[in-house]
Amino acid sequence: MRAEIVSVGTELLLGQIADTNAQHLGQLLPQLGIEHTNRQTVGDNLGRLEEALRLALSRADVVFTIGGLGPTEDDLTREGIARALDDELVRDPSIEATLKEIFERRQANWVDSQLRQADRPSCARPIPNPNGTAPGLICEKGGKVVIALPGPKGEFVPMAEGPVRDYLARLATGGVIASRLLRVCGIGEAALEQSIRHLLTSTNPTVAPYAKVGEVHLRLTASAPTREEALRLIEPVEHEIRAIVGQAAYGIDDQTLESVVIDLLRSKGLKLAVAESCTGGGLGARITSVPGSSDVFVGGFLTYSNETKMRLLGVSAELFEEGGPGAVSEDCASEMAVGAALALGADCAVSITGIAGPDGGSEEKPVGTVYIGVARTGWVSSEHHLFRGDRAAVRERSVQWALIRLREALLFE
Amino acid sequence: MRAEIVSVGTELLLGQIADTNAQHLGQLLPQLGIEHTNRQTVGDNLGRLEEALRLALSRADVVFTIGGLGPTEDDLTREGIARALDDELVRDPSIEATLKEIFERRQANWVDSQLRQADRPSCARPIPNPNGTAPGLICEKGGKVVIALPGPKGEFVPMAEGPVRDYLARLATGGVIASRLLRVCGIGEAALEQSIRHLLTSTNPTVAPYAKVGEVHLRLTASAPTREEALRLIEPVEHEIRAIVGQAAYGIDDQTLESVVIDLLRSKGLKLAVAESCTGGGLGARITSVPGSSDVFVGGFLTYSNETKMRLLGVSAELFEEGGPGAVSEDCASEMAVGAALALGADCAVSITGIAGPDGGSEEKPVGTVYIGVARTGWVSSEHHLFRGDRAAVRERSVQWALIRLREALLFE
Repeated sequence: MRAEIVSVGTELLLGQIADTNAQHLGQLLPQLGIEHTNRQTVGDNLGRLEEALRLALSRADVVFTIGGLGPTEDDLTREGIARALDDELVRDPSIEATLKEIFERRQANWVDSQLRQADRPSCARPIPNPNGTAPGLICEKGGKVVIALPGPKGEFVPMAEGPVRDYLARLATGGVIASRLLRVCGIGEAALEQSIRHLLTSTNPTVAPYAKVGEVHLRLTASAPTREEALRLIEPVEHEIRAIVGQAAYGIDDQTLESVVIDLLRSKGLKLAVAESCTGGGLGARITSVPGSSDVFVGGFLTYSNETKMRLLGVSAELFEEGGPGAVSEDCASEMAVGAALALGADCAVSITGIAGPDGGSEEKPVGTVYIGVARTGWVSSEHHLFRGDRAAVRERSVQWALIRLREALLFE
Repeated sequence: MRAEIVSVGTELLLGQIADTNAQHLGQLLPQLGIEHTNRQTVGDNLGRLEEALRLALSRADVVFTIGGLGPTEDDLTREGIARALDDELVRDPSIEATLKEIFERRQANWVDSQLRQADRPSCARPIPNPNGTAPGLICEKGGKVVIALPGPKGEFVPMAEGPVRDYLARLATGGVIASRLLRVCGIGEAALEQSIRHLLTSTNPTVAPYAKVGEVHLRLTASAPTREEALRLIEPVEHEIRAIVGQAAYGIDDQTLESVVIDLLRSKGLKLAVAESCTGGGLGARITSVPGSSDVFVGGFLTYSNETKMRLLGVSAELFEEGGPGAVSEDCASEMAVGAALALGADCAVSITGIAGPDGGSEEKPVGTVYIGVARTGWVSSEHHLFRGDRAAVRERSVQWALIRLREALLFE
């Protein structure tokens, strides 16, 4: 089965927004075993939209449109699909009723132009949109399918991952597809692929690795007549991967490394502090991006100068003396972590000190040299890293590895 | 003049990477007055690439390809262009010599497969690529132009913004295009557009606004026979905008708000400290994203709990008592800023305290309530904000407005 995506919107052509919806759909289709060889992007122009859709229909079984379903004159996707399918628009009374209900619930003023959103090709059925006004559409005609999805990300993603994924699974496999994302940290992509090589050729479930900064995500996807059976197919493969990678498998699906660390701290009743030098707040910002992180995160120190490291964290002055190890050293990272925990009465602390560049590197300590310290009541350890990349990359990797090492310290104590 | 973009790469279809190069080009073309109505994306497949190029050539004067210029078997763009233009590939000895030079300079092992990159359609001339191996290509044939650009961002952007922009400007206008980005902060997009309404219809230079978080960017673009003349056309319009918006115009081109704030601090010989609650390090991270920020940024405090605010910043215990204003208040923001400056011996300090959500809001202080404090020797002020959006948006806006208020304090003292 072959699919094609037609993204609609002048703002896409002008580069005002990135087409992350098409990217999302591009990731979804191979999970369902659907081939996808072409994509088109057109502006808000009826003639060009119809032309793009006719071309897509000539070479694909399933054509997706993204965007152009709103209530304004510029929203031409319904009309374009009707023309390309040699169909006509009809007004759907059930969509009309739903629209009016939404406006009543929102206490918003009804204007009749909203009714454009109740139009659909006569062959279409609506896909409910709990996050917006315009429904999606599934149009089946002459052995082809056109699926119209809304452009706003908050409406697109739930619709694509919910009813559309289910519809496509039935269409492509006659059954349903279930999928699980297994998140692995602290192992490089090459090493991980090597260790699970025999599973990468599995066909049901499929196992697809995606490399991220300091972690790898494995997407396990199975098809079966029911969701339960599909999940049962995934289970032994997930089990085998977990047996191979061990504790490096830190989470599934939406769990992030920072949310897992916060859950660990909460379950152990521990309070966390941080001390950051070259990341300047990036670690604290990532930890506090998690709602409810205030349960376990008491605070931290941005100690960008040597003076501040001594004053706030009690780092020994000797470190900074001629011939001493300096601010970018194992000793300094350890003293920073201990100092942060003591100053805030925290149970554990993480520190980062390094050279993010582009300046400040030397032959002995090149740009990318970073020390990460982890302190826990009674002990402290710190570790040397050499990260590649520009200033932003070095800082991002530093934060990632600080979280990896903190998680390990919490797991294995 | 009409253009069309053909992005090449299976990794784009699979959504493994976002097509930011096409987005970049989409922003560039209207600056040059070039219309752009269609975009296509194809995988690494010669037949489909030729088909896409023939279609693009049938409706556009200038066709861009992005990607597929590397040395591997999957890199088919050169061949695809030759076929679509009914041309043939020839080996270019000057490209071959350049490639061998690059390998010698890098002390990398030469392999003959690299020679694919020295092939070009016979009608093509190479565009030098100082950031990679494969050159770009400009192919002129039968009144049409195909411009092939490399996929890696670090090669694509300099080539598009340099020689390609110059070539297109001559092609589209017979002259050159000059452009300047004027960055304005602290004025909403609607209010700004209202105040410069009479300039938005200007045709040479054109004035195009782009809304960002807490700022608006105005792109001024002029065409003229020479770059100097184009800049001379921009000058009076830029002058007029600056007269209208005053100090809100904080920078041009690549200058960011954080880099401008750091330059201001450096020129005044001042040291900065921060104290963050709900942003948890986001302000410090943004300030220290600027290379050389250590000249002026001494450090800061992440005071996520009331206890920490009192202990590290000396915030009065009375604020947190029953009936007191609490941690999210003008008083607390002021005391945090003063406390941070005093604790670090800094000349000025900025503080942020607020409710980023999704929980923690009340009727009196809903989610999005944020106070920003700015302290300078001898005085302190703090300000109430109510930001819309989710947790990430509230935190991003808080950081942005902290920088805006800090800049104002530094400018107007």
